[in-house]
Amino acid sequence: MKKVVLAYSGGLDTTFCGLYLSKELGYEVHAVLVNTGGFSSEELKAIDVKAKKLGIASFTVIDCLETFYQNVIRFLVFGNILKNQTYPLSVSTERIVQAQALAQYAKEIEADALAHGSTGAGNDQVRFDMVFQTILPDIEIITPIRDLKLSREQEIDFLKAQGVEMDFEKSKYSINKGIWGTSVGGAETLTSDQYLPDEAFPTPITKKDEEEISLSFKKGELIGINEKVFSHPTEAIQALDKIASPLGIGRDIHVGDTIIGIKGRVGFEAAAPLIIIKAHHLLEKHTLTKWQIFWKNQLSEFYGNHLHEGHYLDPVMRNIEAMLLDSQQKVSGKVNVKLKPEHFILKGIESPHDLMSAKFGSYGEMNLTWSAEDVKGFTKIIGNQTAIYHQVNK
Amino acid sequence: MKKVVLAYSGGLDTTFCGLYLSKELGYEVHAVLVNTGGFSSEELKAIDVKAKKLGIASFTVIDCLETFYQNVIRFLVFGNILKNQTYPLSVSTERIVQAQALAQYAKEIEADALAHGSTGAGNDQVRFDMVFQTILPDIEIITPIRDLKLSREQEIDFLKAQGVEMDFEKSKYSINKGIWGTSVGGAETLTSDQYLPDEAFPTPITKKDEEEISLSFKKGELIGINEKVFSHPTEAIQALDKIASPLGIGRDIHVGDTIIGIKGRVGFEAAAPLIIIKAHHLLEKHTLTKWQIFWKNQLSEFYGNHLHEGHYLDPVMRNIEAMLLDSQQKVSGKVNVKLKPEHFILKGIESPHDLMSAKFGSYGEMNLTWSAEDVKGFTKIIGNQTAIYHQVNK
Amino acid sequence: MKKVVLAYSGGLDTTFCGLYLSKELGYEVHAVLVNTGGFSSEELKAIDVKAKKLGIASFTVIDCLETFYQNVIRFLVFGNILKNQTYPLSVSTERIVQAQALAQYAKEIEADALAHGSTGAGNDQVRFDMVFQTILPDIEIITPIRDLKLSREQEIDFLKAQGVEMDFEKSKYSINKGIWGTSVGGAETLTSDQYLPDEAFPTPITKKDEEEISLSFKKGELIGINEKVFSHPTEAIQALDKIASPLGIGRDIHVGDTIIGIKGRVGFEAAAPLIIIKAHHLLEKHTLTKWQIFWKNQLSEFYGNHLHEGHYLDPVMRNIEAMLLDSQQKVSGKVNVKLKPEHFILKGIESPHDLMSAKFGSYGEMNLTWSAEDVKGFTKIIGNQTAIYHQVNK
Amino acid sequence: MKKVVLAYSGGLDTTFCGLYLSKELGYEVHAVLVNTGGFSSEELKAIDVKAKKLGIASFTVIDCLETFYQNVIRFLVFGNILKNQTYPLSVSTERIVQAQALAQYAKEIEADALAHGSTGAGNDQVRFDMVFQTILPDIEIITPIRDLKLSREQEIDFLKAQGVEMDFEKSKYSINKGIWGTSVGGAETLTSDQYLPDEAFPTPITKKDEEEISLSFKKGELIGINEKVFSHPTEAIQALDKIASPLGIGRDIHVGDTIIGIKGRVGFEAAAPLIIIKAHHLLEKHTLTKWQIFWKNQLSEFYGNHLHEGHYLDPVMRNIEAMLLDSQQKVSGKVNVKLKPEHFILKGIESPHDLMSAKFGSYGEMNLTWSAEDVKGFTKIIGNQTAIYHQVNK
Repeated sequence: MKKVVLAYSGGLDTTFCGLYLSKELGYEVHAVLVNTGGFSSEELKAIDVKAKKLGIASFTVIDCLETFYQNVIRFLVFGNILKNQTYPLSVSTERIVQAQALAQYAKEIEADALAHGSTGAGNDQVRFDMVFQTILPDIEIITPIRDLKLSREQEIDFLKAQGVEMDFEKSKYSINKGIWGTSVGGAETLTSDQYLPDEAFPTPITKKDEEEISLSFKKGELIGINEKVFSHPTEAIQALDKIASPLGIGRDIHVGDTIIGIKGRVGFEAAAPLIIIKAHHLLEKHTLTKWQIFWKNQLSEFYGNHLHEGHYLDPVMRNIEAMLLDSQQKVSGKVNVKLKPEHFILKGIESPHDLMSAKFGSYGEMNLTWSAEDVKGFTKIIGNQTAIYHQVNK
Repeated sequence: MKKVVLAYSGGLDTTFCGLYLSKELGYEVHAVLVNTGGFSSEELKAIDVKAKKLGIASFTVIDCLETFYQNVIRFLVFGNILKNQTYPLSVSTERIVQAQALAQYAKEIEADALAHGSTGAGNDQVRFDMVFQTILPDIEIITPIRDLKLSREQEIDFLKAQGVEMDFEKSKYSINKGIWGTSVGGAETLTSDQYLPDEAFPTPITKKDEEEISLSFKKGELIGINEKVFSHPTEAIQALDKIASPLGIGRDIHVGDTIIGIKGRVGFEAAAPLIIIKAHHLLEKHTLTKWQIFWKNQLSEFYGNHLHEGHYLDPVMRNIEAMLLDSQQKVSGKVNVKLKPEHFILKGIESPHDLMSAKFGSYGEMNLTWSAEDVKGFTKIIGNQTAIYHQVNK
Repeated sequence: MKKVVLAYSGGLDTTFCGLYLSKELGYEVHAVLVNTGGFSSEELKAIDVKAKKLGIASFTVIDCLETFYQNVIRFLVFGNILKNQTYPLSVSTERIVQAQALAQYAKEIEADALAHGSTGAGNDQVRFDMVFQTILPDIEIITPIRDLKLSREQEIDFLKAQGVEMDFEKSKYSINKGIWGTSVGGAETLTSDQYLPDEAFPTPITKKDEEEISLSFKKGELIGINEKVFSHPTEAIQALDKIASPLGIGRDIHVGDTIIGIKGRVGFEAAAPLIIIKAHHLLEKHTLTKWQIFWKNQLSEFYGNHLHEGHYLDPVMRNIEAMLLDSQQKVSGKVNVKLKPEHFILKGIESPHDLMSAKFGSYGEMNLTWSAEDVKGFTKIIGNQTAIYHQVNK
Repeated sequence: MKKVVLAYSGGLDTTFCGLYLSKELGYEVHAVLVNTGGFSSEELKAIDVKAKKLGIASFTVIDCLETFYQNVIRFLVFGNILKNQTYPLSVSTERIVQAQALAQYAKEIEADALAHGSTGAGNDQVRFDMVFQTILPDIEIITPIRDLKLSREQEIDFLKAQGVEMDFEKSKYSINKGIWGTSVGGAETLTSDQYLPDEAFPTPITKKDEEEISLSFKKGELIGINEKVFSHPTEAIQALDKIASPLGIGRDIHVGDTIIGIKGRVGFEAAAPLIIIKAHHLLEKHTLTKWQIFWKNQLSEFYGNHLHEGHYLDPVMRNIEAMLLDSQQKVSGKVNVKLKPEHFILKGIESPHDLMSAKFGSYGEMNLTWSAEDVKGFTKIIGNQTAIYHQVNK
């Protein structure tokens, strides 16, 4: 009997895939859920119970939160990566880590095939396939929903016929939760002109009062909030999210280019990622030189796009990461943030590496370490070529 | 008697310069105020009265709002230019236009010298000098405050001794008003960790209720608000500012690299610029291709920095503007914005050039114009090189 | 009867396609040869005669040399485009212009299908299809050789069976001639370590003596050689090629990334393109400012790659062309070149727009327009931030 | 008595400085020659003898060849850095390493001042000062020739008056020898249109026959020539130079932007650097992915310019080096080169990391690992957005 490893989440699509692969295609199905921080242990337990009822060969949970942080999130912060200056690449990047773990698992159990429940109109199909074909070039990839162009109703009919009992009611908004933000899709995001209503976002707004917090960064990584130092940045991320989400912070709609060429919109709630990136960015403005900031931006835009499009295993990504990592050596210090309803203000920073220091002169006020003559000479020389250009070409 | 053209605003520094140049240095002083939208006609009249009392040779107002819009603001919008992703280059870019008008005027009246009231610790000194030395390479440039390293008190003593009567009291915050935003300096902006208090910002918060508006763009330029079409984009900018500023929108502190190498902070209030740039950017996300967006970003960051640093006359700026202009041909349509206290939400857009259309498939939902096989082929080929790389190097 | 427009060159592959489409698939075949400068009128006549013998519905020649020059070659020169700093994109870019002319023709005669003779392992298939699907999204595209994975022998057998008489002997090297260079493929280019022998290149080496010429450029375009001014740059290109090719100049092997992800090698002979690009580049070094040169390079690399990969119709290409065009305003003057066996030397330039002029000081010799103090001030300020960085972080 | 450390080479300028500093300014002069590979031990001995006759306090030679290689040359190869695509930054980069060694020495002996013999019209003055002011912000910098605007004749008169005996005859060409190439200045390089005569270049042409060699690279560094493996890349560089220079390879004139804004020309002979960079580049074309090549190019152009302009200590340079270093992991293999009179041909490469392998399909020949359908799907999707753009905007 041929073995297939199935990317499994316990939802309608992957439940269908599990049964379809085993009953219709005759595979020995090994369902694997790679948890990159989106599932609590309670949720995992519930999925486990349901999976076991399906009569598939095995169900395994692989915890990849640490891998996700070290290989992805860290660099998203170092690069201040917001796709189209808006979207923290919330859920999309998890697929990359999940796909690698699935391929690794398939290798270990010597599976004949890998399967996932993607449709033919999204980005995830490409992300999964790209990683699979790179790590296991000879493995078969099976995507029942994409191949059969199945509708939700057809999946449900099949599952009911197989005697599966689950909640088949479609929720109004499709929610995809992860540690680096939650994506939200709905009727509105299929249009260009509608915004999501408040109730579409997962965290209800329960706070109204503004709140001041300080974030501590060490070499570009969030290590503490206020007085508390966390044992791992992922804990700090989760703690920050708990503080800021109830204020309605971090909600927006992203619109951008999908891998398949169409434009797509997706709502998201990502309070912690947005605050962390903006705070980190401010700290960099104080601690990096002008050209460090410039080149980080030039590279980060490509890095974010390439990652989004599933090219994580292109070695250029490692090259860029080497550069990003090296740039973080002095990005340490405290950023003061005022949280307000639905938005936040960056108040300022404190850092031993702050390049803004009255010791060297204050902007617009005093020139302590240079003279008027120095600036005149500077201006003369820095503008020399343009002046020559205009004299030659007048 | 040698003639000097003095960049004049009627404040302490330029009043000092006017008298110093005439009384101490013996120049025939021609004071010129280049208005790029920061002065109302009432303010100009008051300045005119005061200037005439100084006993200088002439006082002239040159209106450069149209030049400022056509040569600068337009491109700041096309390029979505926010320095360090925050600051709309509010006041700084006006200097460039002012300096050119001053040099042109000096040429016309055959002046021997140009003078401005900059100190030795700011960016404006470089901006003025760079333009002056390019347009009039042989003219003398006189900067009394910078050269004499004068304190405010010394200037006041001199003016009092000359019998000048004006309000010598220093306001707590130095405010610099322009059509593209108002800059705010104060004790807080000289530190890294303090934020400006509400009262530092020029427009008092007098509105609290959210408000929906729509902005109409034509080829990248703002032409209308709600139902109203304006005869000129500058009117639309001013109208938008009146709507949004009383909500406290558009306030922030910018920190960045000054031309002279130190880091500097400046507060600003720029409701209209921020809303316009963000709305314009959203419209571009719907109407431009992926690589148009990418390259506009790469170039715009440099364009904004180079402009900020006074290199407006470098011909590379014209080259980049040609590219930006060409990119705007389809950036037309309506952007719906919800104004809220201290922030705003972009609700969505409507445009005949919108590349997001259900006709071509909906993200994550339906693939109408391509098949599952197409995406598989795409993924195979687009990932081919990375797959080969890993097979060769495994 | 359904109509098909066939991209036709009279070689084995397109002859096969013509007959196959008509005899096997029952199409009314309209063969079209789009000449972008690679065919002489004699060659075209011979192809016409052969085409008419095939019994297809029509054979048409469309002359697109001017379009090719205006839409492509011109910008390759403006951008100094050498793929991987070696290859002038000799033949590949012709496909783009050809594909557009073919699609236009198909539109006019209301064809049902477009056909080309590409295999499944090259770049041209993508270039043709990409343009076709953009201009005529609903047209059928037929590629018999690719679809049937035909070998050369199978094609010959078919043609012989159809009674076609032509020279079926395979030449040792496949040659693809165009005005912007000739590509050469052979056994050696299928390896990584072999070089092409002299006889593989189309122009025999018949000159041995060095020769001095001067090239005249006007706004970036070649308009004259020595004393002669040409009525069109394409004539100048062809004249230069006649002068330089017999010296063995312009031969090399390009290796780079194909559109389909594999690495590919192709030999080429392109004397005129290489001399023109290098001479133009030198003229730019004298007439453009530092940042014009920098940004032209950054954009040109992408422009060349994107063009090579068939993305000509992406509007970002028009945006970049606007920038390149604007950059050429002062790129006028004369470049002196010494042609030598198999290589050439750029001797120098003369231009009224030359920014190198002793009037402004000579490098390393004399500082006429600035003082030692100016440079000290410049150095102090330009190095200010790095100095601060090291003091803060020591 | 105040101590000064003088950058010393034994030529006219630095001999003048040595005496001037001691006799006229009363300094205790410590002359230091930092050898980055440009001086043989014989030359150093001769300089030592002369220096001791000057009656200065001390003369020291610091060997920085290894530092120069590890901190600079290595990265010039990794980045394939040719300024303006021509000049291997031959001598200019040595100044950076020399300046650092001088500053370090000054720190150790607690000198009061640093001195160098630069004029006011070259790049070196900025390079020296920029490094000095960064490492020793409080030290005095003395530049007698620049400050006094001395002519050659004035220097000679002073030295003769001091009883110095040396060869005061000016050679027709000023030669500056280094391991990474020799620069050549003369009357011709002060014009835009003259080329240097053969005799201006330091190595006489003594070979005429072509010669085949192979270069072995390991992780981007040259480690062997033909069968010989060298104990250090600097030895391989020197050996290659001995082989190739007598053929007249590597001569050219560079024209580019000086730090002080004027355009400058300099001749050079750099056989080994040019061959190494071109060979290394070819190896990269076979072993790196498309985007690795693209981003290396984008960054390298800036890296080379920034280095050339003396910004070595800007931390952005370390960030870029981290990226370049990471990119070299698979750049190992052999490059076959045919040396010819005055030029060379890259024949091909052999590498276990070569991504061009018939195993994955051969360009234009056979598609082994993908099908016609795959390419069609690829083209459909990769061209999807442009097709949509034209449909929306037709």
